Amino acid sequence: MTAVGIDAIEIWTGNLKLDLPGTFAPEKGEDPEKYTKGLGLTASSFPDSYEDIVTMAANAAHRLMERKGLEPEDIGRIDVATESAFDNSKPVSTYVAGCLETVYDGDFHHANKGERKFACIAGTQSLDDAYNWIRAGRNRGRGALVIATDTALYARGDAGEATQGAGAVAMYIAEDPDLVELSAEQGYGSADETDFLKPNQQFPSVDGKRSVQVYLARMREALEDYESVAGDVHPDDIVFAPFHTPFPGMVRKAAMLAYRHITRDTAIEDELAEEIGRQPRPEAFDTDDAYRDALREYMDALKGTARYQEWYDATIDPTLTLSREVGNWYTGSVHVARVSALKTALEAGRDLTGEQLLVGSYGSGAQAEIHAETIQDGWEDEIAALNVDEQLANRYDMSWDDYEEIHDAHNHDMDVDVEEFTTPSEEFVFDGWGRMGERKYRYVE
Amino acid sequence: MTAVGIDAIEIWTGNLKLDLPGTFAPEKGEDPEKYTKGLGLTASSFPDSYEDIVTMAANAAHRLMERKGLEPEDIGRIDVATESAFDNSKPVSTYVAGCLETVYDGDFHHANKGERKFACIAGTQSLDDAYNWIRAGRNRGRGALVIATDTALYARGDAGEATQGAGAVAMYIAEDPDLVELSAEQGYGSADETDFLKPNQQFPSVDGKRSVQVYLARMREALEDYESVAGDVHPDDIVFAPFHTPFPGMVRKAAMLAYRHITRDTAIEDELAEEIGRQPRPEAFDTDDAYRDALREYMDALKGTARYQEWYDATIDPTLTLSREVGNWYTGSVHVARVSALKTALEAGRDLTGEQLLVGSYGSGAQAEIHAETIQDGWEDEIAALNVDEQLANRYDMSWDDYEEIHDAHNHDMDVDVEEFTTPSEEFVFDGWGRMGERKYRYVE
Repeated sequence: MTAVGIDAIEIWTGNLKLDLPGTFAPEKGEDPEKYTKGLGLTASSFPDSYEDIVTMAANAAHRLMERKGLEPEDIGRIDVATESAFDNSKPVSTYVAGCLETVYDGDFHHANKGERKFACIAGTQSLDDAYNWIRAGRNRGRGALVIATDTALYARGDAGEATQGAGAVAMYIAEDPDLVELSAEQGYGSADETDFLKPNQQFPSVDGKRSVQVYLARMREALEDYESVAGDVHPDDIVFAPFHTPFPGMVRKAAMLAYRHITRDTAIEDELAEEIGRQPRPEAFDTDDAYRDALREYMDALKGTARYQEWYDATIDPTLTLSREVGNWYTGSVHVARVSALKTALEAGRDLTGEQLLVGSYGSGAQAEIHAETIQDGWEDEIAALNVDEQLANRYDMSWDDYEEIHDAHNHDMDVDVEEFTTPSEEFVFDGWGRMGERKYRYVE
Repeated sequence: MTAVGIDAIEIWTGNLKLDLPGTFAPEKGEDPEKYTKGLGLTASSFPDSYEDIVTMAANAAHRLMERKGLEPEDIGRIDVATESAFDNSKPVSTYVAGCLETVYDGDFHHANKGERKFACIAGTQSLDDAYNWIRAGRNRGRGALVIATDTALYARGDAGEATQGAGAVAMYIAEDPDLVELSAEQGYGSADETDFLKPNQQFPSVDGKRSVQVYLARMREALEDYESVAGDVHPDDIVFAPFHTPFPGMVRKAAMLAYRHITRDTAIEDELAEEIGRQPRPEAFDTDDAYRDALREYMDALKGTARYQEWYDATIDPTLTLSREVGNWYTGSVHVARVSALKTALEAGRDLTGEQLLVGSYGSGAQAEIHAETIQDGWEDEIAALNVDEQLANRYDMSWDDYEEIHDAHNHDMDVDVEEFTTPSEEFVFDGWGRMGERKYRYVE
């Protein structure tokens, strides 16, 4: 069977930056370590006043197409995943195609365009749709452009304000991919939950504590469901495990649960037993509470072992490097985590071809999905071609006043005109409203 | 290759009805024929105050599951298509699954849930995703529940007010389907258009004239693209052609263009030539305008021929029967048209097994898709099991005052409490808001 997967990936960050320990913490009167250590974040990306989900998506896609020498004719499908849509009917993918058509000779009239919404998991769902479309033999030799784009803003003063972020990830899905092959096997954990939602509103209502519990519960279900079709996962089989990263601290919790699960009934559990005992099993306890207490105790002890720490440092920590600098990109977040891990490995000169990633996506509301990816032999060139470090370094570092202004500029309920902080160059920009309330765009040379 | 397609379909109408010639026309001071002849509509469906896109979707899905003896375990995927979403993050499919879980023993934790948005074409896009998922071999023997649900409301006084409607269509997509097999071949016509949109608003901004042009232009592209992979379409190959039906008058225009296209260079064109001449070809004209004038003249003549009228009455008119009674259901509309045609054929005692449908879906913004469907030998039982006539007959016929009240009740910007006009029975109903602004539901015995 021909491999199908991600042939190329591009990241486009919002052009502004909010320094959490340097700017946000002092203004909130908080210890900077609340953000850097607790959440695991040092900065957030924001869109400048001429940027939005369309410009970031189109810019990521444009860079990807230029780098891979793709023409509109090569693309049979454009799917955008977002939870920051500004229209209840017309999909963002049509705007993105409209932008790209201004810089290419060809057009996308032949391409199926769409939009998916399910909190932060819709990017991975769109990836799946593209994979299935190719596997179903309906792609006519073309690939799919899948773009995850969001401006993850919270109401000012909301507990989530420190976890904001904005950016887009564009991926080209094709046969014989250069970057990773996707597994046919998938696992799901999905339930009707009220942890995070946006009922007719731009900024989310969040039950933070519930949201953490739901993330972990759904991810566990997804892992068990994945193992039921793909067989048991063993730590030695996985080089990296990119998870959805609302903030790195969340992934620290998920990683520990995952490690406990995948080491159960393995030699690793036996070896750890000398130091911290064996994992508690529910059948050994009279009550659920007693079982849960024992679990908590085991997890605390596990965290302190050198074996767990080594695994975490090798398999999880490298997935968080970019996230620390950009915050939560919602639909793009798990895809940023994948890039982050591969980039770290490239910089360390590692040979990863043929190695496996275990990818854990999540969307509030709520659903988790687990699948595996096999790293292809073009991965080094693909990752080396990214200019994400340059993009991050070039962001304008906002003062507190700047931040307050730009948050208002992107608030749909406010009508403010904010001067841009940066000068756009070789990118698509927002160019005002048309007569039917549509957003208009142009390319700046 | 195993057939994949629609195994079963269910329709759920809003419980209220607005009589266009009897109630709407007199209030507007218009000739009733403006609606019945011009638009081709006699009534619109509306949701009662306890109904919304979730209740209609869950009720259609529940009736489908009961009728086909399906349990949650049989369903691996729930995709909802809508352009009436009330949340920017949490998908309607999670609410629907939550409703269904209250009346079944099993749950849908294993099911991939999603939401698609692209004006009225997203229902067909979700059908495609389900087809591709099965063809990709990822369904583990399960089928997909695809639901198109919308409350197609316009601002009061808008030109589109007479074309409103509300209802849901649920479809079960599976291997060896009882109703229709979907073709692998598809044709697309897709462009970035500003004909109809909802920029951060519930009710649409519409450029009516442009919308008609774009519908026809995209549909023509889609048909040409379809023929490029499936071969030329001939009128004799198609028993019915269900099109997206914003109002039957729109389909009258589309049908004529389609007929001209598929009869070109056929014996039909030759036979018609004696009466109205051959079709104009662009190369015979010095200017585009002259060509277009000739086309218009040919189309006027074509409309008057008995041959065209017979084709229209046999192939198109039966697809419009239900639409006339319910108005525009947006994402559900083309699926209502399919049912309408098959229901008419069943009532006429026709044998359709093995016959072909040519299905034309459309969404503003804008995209058309054409595919074929082959009618399966279970179609008569499937269509006979529908109770849509009973549902339509049982709708409460609103007075003008009732209509004004219920329109306000469903307006997200108004906070009014409207008494229900009908008494719910054996259905899911809206049950108020939760503490995070989420909508809550319960089943009424």
